[in-house]
Amino acid sequence: MPHLVVLYTPNLDPETNMTVLCRALADTMLQTHDDDGKPVFPTGGTRVLAYPAAHFAVADGKADYAFVYLNMRMAHGRSASTHKRVGDALLMCAKAHFQPVFKERHIGITLQIDEGHEVFDAKHSNLHPLFQASIGAPS
Amino acid sequence: MPHLVVLYTPNLDPETNMTVLCRALADTMLQTHDDDGKPVFPTGGTRVLAYPAAHFAVADGKADYAFVYLNMRMAHGRSASTHKRVGDALLMCAKAHFQPVFKERHIGITLQIDEGHEVFDAKHSNLHPLFQASIGAPS
Amino acid sequence: MPHLVVLYTPNLDPETNMTVLCRALADTMLQTHDDDGKPVFPTGGTRVLAYPAAHFAVADGKADYAFVYLNMRMAHGRSASTHKRVGDALLMCAKAHFQPVFKERHIGITLQIDEGHEVFDAKHSNLHPLFQASIGAPS
Repeated sequence: MPHLVVLYTPNLDPETNMTVLCRALADTMLQTHDDDGKPVFPTGGTRVLAYPAAHFAVADGKADYAFVYLNMRMAHGRSASTHKRVGDALLMCAKAHFQPVFKERHIGITLQIDEGHEVFDAKHSNLHPLFQASIGAPS
Repeated sequence: MPHLVVLYTPNLDPETNMTVLCRALADTMLQTHDDDGKPVFPTGGTRVLAYPAAHFAVADGKADYAFVYLNMRMAHGRSASTHKRVGDALLMCAKAHFQPVFKERHIGITLQIDEGHEVFDAKHSNLHPLFQASIGAPS
Repeated sequence: MPHLVVLYTPNLDPETNMTVLCRALADTMLQTHDDDGKPVFPTGGTRVLAYPAAHFAVADGKADYAFVYLNMRMAHGRSASTHKRVGDALLMCAKAHFQPVFKERHIGITLQIDEGHEVFDAKHSNLHPLFQASIGAPS
């Protein structure tokens, strides 16, 4: 953790580069700091995965509507101000990325952040040791 | 919000039209009313996204089983009777769609509705203004 | 229910057989017993679905990192010892499957188990009757 999963309508793939969006979102996550000036997320646990739907329906279906749903899941326990800081930064990133698309077509973008309340949590990774500065940060 | 995400085994794609299902589910959402006779969902926020798995395993794997998981997420705070009304309508829609498939193969269909308990929620959309009648409805 | 959804970076597909992983995870679920020696999950409700991302970003993006996120959702109300038993068994299964990959590349694996807190739950299935021994088991 954290992870950000992007579910979207496939009509966006010809119009914008979703890999670029993924990288921009991950960079935003890595550059966000908490109230104490520390990175909110560990580098080795940061990932963004994007999935175009194979089939979809949006609104009344009478036009070529597009939709993007960005859902972040982070570990339980961070402060409300951190949630807002992360959310605002990710929304700004998404708005900037989709600005050219937004001007040209019908599109809805929704961003939600969930705290995980998992009953079991385990990791097996050789990524974290690569990023010394992140050691000790909560996942 | 709301959104409905459909995760399913890819052996269904040659047997039924999942785009038709998505449209039928979206129409069902748009036609559902609450206890006061008002639409439960705003038109501009209604979307259905369906994803066939790239890899899967179902039950004991000894036959060609199929599975469909329909997961709706809606905003927190609607009444239990609204949850039931939406759930019953969506289940009836899914059962009707899969009836020909159900008679011919092994298939399991599960529908669950979650209320979102997100710690951050933001929208950026030019869809909502298209549907005047929906303005004022909760998302 | 239960279901296990695997979200992963597509750079893993040429390196390991994810269908084999899905089957191994499903078998692990079917072979897990609770404190009373009964199967934790019904055969007819067990499924694993795996999805490679179409676009992704991991960590700082400076190398070819891979990520696998395994998310199980099971019905509410099982014991903490059952959660741990299921989680440990699934993690062992995933670690064994990815061991050859783990030695060769940068990869992070995260497993989380959620209890569903759905406000509506319905099933329509002709799978459960196929597995008599599972009748009566919670989903």
